[in-house]
Amino acid sequence: MPTFQSVRGMRDLLPEEAETLNHVIAKARETAELYGYREVITPVVEPYELLSAKSGEEIRQRMFTFKDLGDRTVALRPEFTASIARLATTALKNEPKPLRTFSVGSVYRYDEPQRGRYREFWQSDFEVIGSNRPEADAEIILLTNSLMKATGLRNYTFKIGHIGVIRGILSQENVDDKTQNAILQRMDKKEYDEAFNILNPRISRTLQGLVELKSSSAFETVKKIKAHVKGYDDAEVAADNLFEILKLVTESGCEIETVDPGFGRGLEYYTGTIFEVYTPELDIALGGGGRYDRLIEVFGGEPTPATGVAHGLDRIALAMGMQKTALPTRREKRVLVIPVNEELRGEALKISQRLREAGIPVEFEIMGRKMAKALEDADRRQMNYAVIVGERELKEGSVVVRDLAKREQTVVAIEKLSEKIRG
Amino acid sequence: MPTFQSVRGMRDLLPEEAETLNHVIAKARETAELYGYREVITPVVEPYELLSAKSGEEIRQRMFTFKDLGDRTVALRPEFTASIARLATTALKNEPKPLRTFSVGSVYRYDEPQRGRYREFWQSDFEVIGSNRPEADAEIILLTNSLMKATGLRNYTFKIGHIGVIRGILSQENVDDKTQNAILQRMDKKEYDEAFNILNPRISRTLQGLVELKSSSAFETVKKIKAHVKGYDDAEVAADNLFEILKLVTESGCEIETVDPGFGRGLEYYTGTIFEVYTPELDIALGGGGRYDRLIEVFGGEPTPATGVAHGLDRIALAMGMQKTALPTRREKRVLVIPVNEELRGEALKISQRLREAGIPVEFEIMGRKMAKALEDADRRQMNYAVIVGERELKEGSVVVRDLAKREQTVVAIEKLSEKIRG
Repeated sequence: MPTFQSVRGMRDLLPEEAETLNHVIAKARETAELYGYREVITPVVEPYELLSAKSGEEIRQRMFTFKDLGDRTVALRPEFTASIARLATTALKNEPKPLRTFSVGSVYRYDEPQRGRYREFWQSDFEVIGSNRPEADAEIILLTNSLMKATGLRNYTFKIGHIGVIRGILSQENVDDKTQNAILQRMDKKEYDEAFNILNPRISRTLQGLVELKSSSAFETVKKIKAHVKGYDDAEVAADNLFEILKLVTESGCEIETVDPGFGRGLEYYTGTIFEVYTPELDIALGGGGRYDRLIEVFGGEPTPATGVAHGLDRIALAMGMQKTALPTRREKRVLVIPVNEELRGEALKISQRLREAGIPVEFEIMGRKMAKALEDADRRQMNYAVIVGERELKEGSVVVRDLAKREQTVVAIEKLSEKIRG
Repeated sequence: MPTFQSVRGMRDLLPEEAETLNHVIAKARETAELYGYREVITPVVEPYELLSAKSGEEIRQRMFTFKDLGDRTVALRPEFTASIARLATTALKNEPKPLRTFSVGSVYRYDEPQRGRYREFWQSDFEVIGSNRPEADAEIILLTNSLMKATGLRNYTFKIGHIGVIRGILSQENVDDKTQNAILQRMDKKEYDEAFNILNPRISRTLQGLVELKSSSAFETVKKIKAHVKGYDDAEVAADNLFEILKLVTESGCEIETVDPGFGRGLEYYTGTIFEVYTPELDIALGGGGRYDRLIEVFGGEPTPATGVAHGLDRIALAMGMQKTALPTRREKRVLVIPVNEELRGEALKISQRLREAGIPVEFEIMGRKMAKALEDADRRQMNYAVIVGERELKEGSVVVRDLAKREQTVVAIEKLSEKIRG
């Protein structure tokens, strides 16, 4: 029988890769604690109806959708926000606001696999529900900055924009929501010509002018945006809002490198500030999010402002690898316990349990190999000590401890064993 | 628009439930480290062919199976062992033996939902590949014992059996594998009459006698099993093997309460010792596993002995709840930072960042509420301190710290702030 392969676009994380991803997950969880976000765990499988409600055509077509045995149309979540909005309108409806939630897990999109893009990938997701204020938008950028810093990544940069500027112009020009969504989707791919050519030339020129605005400083760019959209009331309010958020973030010590006036994001539900974070090594974002003030309402809740961010954890891990970011080194020594004969296996297991209870990782010799062979293997796998359980020493409550690097053996009382190994 | 519900059989874990599950996951990961199991992360979505190869008819019919957009028949994993066997025959093929792997995550089975049984549930999975020795079987029982102990559960009990005893009898009686699988599946549900009535009366009586064997001690039961299967060579070898494993486990300090001669488990790939662990509060197992010496071969690898165990982590969390097992209490004080006016938001955010960098969880007042309202909310949510950032104190490099329990306020230098909060 030939061997099996994994499904195209899905991959295995071998021990070192898994360790890095788990390290990033731990940092995301620490960040959540430091910012007061409480973790919730929602299902990987959700109703298709829920996931497709406001995600946008693009993502809808790339979902893993199927019928379960009860003939329900379900899908694997392509992101977390829909599930959190569901919670915010049901089980967590009566929680005091602001409601801050954190989630972490795998999400699924049927994309063409490439470096940093898999069909199963990991996200941490932070949502703040109930605040319409710029402090909330600032917070999700600041916590993203904290997470990036905590992973040890260098040279990452933030890009920020505001959906309200573009929607403000389009709405005042009576462009319907569906067309707006299509335009924003195109803008997300930087296909500006295709995005704008369905509009009349005057509006098209205004938008073309908007996306081409540039300046040496982020604050200057926002000022130019405001000047450019003069007369479009909602767009002006959006520009002011962007300025205020930029100010709060900068004042609290996080630099925003780029304001992108033509910045769109793939998801339909955004209404306000949106942002992404990048490293020079990858041309895909390591994280991004923004404000979505209408989603909770669409999901059957009271009108409730909200903002949130998702981080691509396996992409962060990939970037760490490319930057050769070191993980913290293991503290504990590794020990192999070997009984010298079959009769001593029970005693040797007991000693192993004792060491483990003291917090020392122990591998037990389960292959029944001869001493020399077992030691050779321990050496190759760079273990620190071998604990050899023999009849003679055991009678005196002792074992032989071999320092595998120094190739030295000493007899150690079992009572002092964990102390000796800790050094 | 009405609110959305989750998919039937899938559930949300709200903050306290998520915290308990995460605590159990952390304990499983600690156990893996202490026993030398290295973590790998495999996809939730696997080829149907892989997952169904040796899982057994019962589980095959309860899988979430569907076609992906590339017309591949895939399924959500109902367990981890098939994925690990895939790794052991591909990416990890050349790793030195024993290969010890650890995995943790959600698995999926279309079962009728009931207490402790959901269609999405969490498992930790430990596999030892490459050892045919009883030490390996003992190890997976011992680590299960360590995990149960680490979660603080009380009164849990182990049940052990050996598939080789039953298969030994049936093989020697020329019963084919398919029929054997059907019989074991029935035995798993304790439908012994239905299991045995397809056999001739003599064999049926032998098996009926076997499953009815009982004794006051585990060791005695195994001795009776051996006597009962006299003449069936492989069954006798299996009984000896069971005795040896029982001895190793008992000698190293873990008690096995029950030997069940008629013990079957739902999965077809088992070939040797199998076991489960229970608490009195639930009639479903909290974990279980056993030896599967033929699976790696079926998956296209060299013939390789293996054994492993999976733990039902959300069931363990449920049992902990029923036993009122306390989680470790949080160490860190919780702080709300409030700027007294809009102009001070940037400064207040900066102070928040400083506290977070010192490891102190901070919630920032993002609702723009009046002081009294914000303090009232902090009180209700049992925060420890409010840090009030005001113009006057800030000029002297200080802030006001309010102890919310004692209702006392003091002026504290920003430099001493984290010290003061830590107490």
